[in-house]
Amino acid sequence: MKCMREGYSQQLESITHDLVVMTELVGVAITEATSALLDDNLELAQSVIDGDARIDQINAALEERCFKIAALQAPMGTDLRLVMGGIKIATSLERMGDLAVHIAKQVRLRYPSVSIPSDLSATFMEMGEAAKKIVFATGRVVESRDTDLADEIKSYDDTLDRLHRELFSAVLSDDWAHGVEAAIDVTLLSRFYERFGDHAVTVARRVIHIVTGEPYSK
Amino acid sequence: MKCMREGYSQQLESITHDLVVMTELVGVAITEATSALLDDNLELAQSVIDGDARIDQINAALEERCFKIAALQAPMGTDLRLVMGGIKIATSLERMGDLAVHIAKQVRLRYPSVSIPSDLSATFMEMGEAAKKIVFATGRVVESRDTDLADEIKSYDDTLDRLHRELFSAVLSDDWAHGVEAAIDVTLLSRFYERFGDHAVTVARRVIHIVTGEPYSK
Repeated sequence: MKCMREGYSQQLESITHDLVVMTELVGVAITEATSALLDDNLELAQSVIDGDARIDQINAALEERCFKIAALQAPMGTDLRLVMGGIKIATSLERMGDLAVHIAKQVRLRYPSVSIPSDLSATFMEMGEAAKKIVFATGRVVESRDTDLADEIKSYDDTLDRLHRELFSAVLSDDWAHGVEAAIDVTLLSRFYERFGDHAVTVARRVIHIVTGEPYSK
Repeated sequence: MKCMREGYSQQLESITHDLVVMTELVGVAITEATSALLDDNLELAQSVIDGDARIDQINAALEERCFKIAALQAPMGTDLRLVMGGIKIATSLERMGDLAVHIAKQVRLRYPSVSIPSDLSATFMEMGEAAKKIVFATGRVVESRDTDLADEIKSYDDTLDRLHRELFSAVLSDDWAHGVEAAIDVTLLSRFYERFGDHAVTVARRVIHIVTGEPYSK
């Protein structure tokens, strides 16, 4: 019995552990994707694209494991919310990985041309910083279940939303001198970062749901 | 005991039932969003935006119910896959509803101006048709678990991908005469439809997973 309970608590811990590993891999992905974008680095872009398979694998394996724990252990309360919420958190993290890949693919598509006009580099650098911080904060909130960190995540998300609006204005201003293709590229890229932030907020809310049991609101 | 088993099978049926209702509501949403887009109809756009709350509510209620079924009934095999897969299918459908809202919000943003250049109306009409068909096919696959329908879903998705590429080419061609803002609008709108199709494919794959138990691949 003792042995089974130990197995059970290790199984639950492994969910959290895998989610934290996913945040770390997504953190690397978005950091490298931003570098690739700023430096038009094809090799780095390809590394982000190739690296996504591992995130997908962890997601799929984690899901199967959550299914098995639910079936064999019939968890209750917080444990049940972790098992089922864990699946949804993994989905969000997997989507964040995809968004990093979208950025990297944009770099690959435009290479050897530049991906973004040089006068927007500073803004994208700031977006990349906020995206990196938000995913590492997400990892901390998943690991510690310290729901106070949700405020920090919200503030990085606000930064991403603000920069997204700024880029949108830049693209539509009369001063825009880079043409239609660059306008579309910038809009899509900016949107990828903005969506990346939204998913991090969703993860934070999920963690609050696991901890408190309060109904999950989007 | 008999009574409890009846209750259990009704609970499982209610998951499928709610997912089918969600596909119907999402079907209405994408149909109305497309009409609003083609006719620059603000009222219809607002109706799509307001109607999304009901889809969100069903999603949240369904998720809570799946949690409870998992906790109280400890389902196994196909039932377990339905309970846990149901949550993920609901997430995809809820996202499809959001994409219809994104389209409607774009109409509201540009109103009383037109949302799309008139020479692209036919293409967006075709996208709207394919999106409507894909979501109704999704409803049928969820209800009947007839995995052969997955091929039909795939073919609508191929149509959406093709139209998305066509619009992208139009926007970037030398003939494009509608300026940067319209180019961005068209690209984003087209992407919303394309993503809509992707989520439908994900739902179909989830249903196959429920039926066959084969590992879920994205």
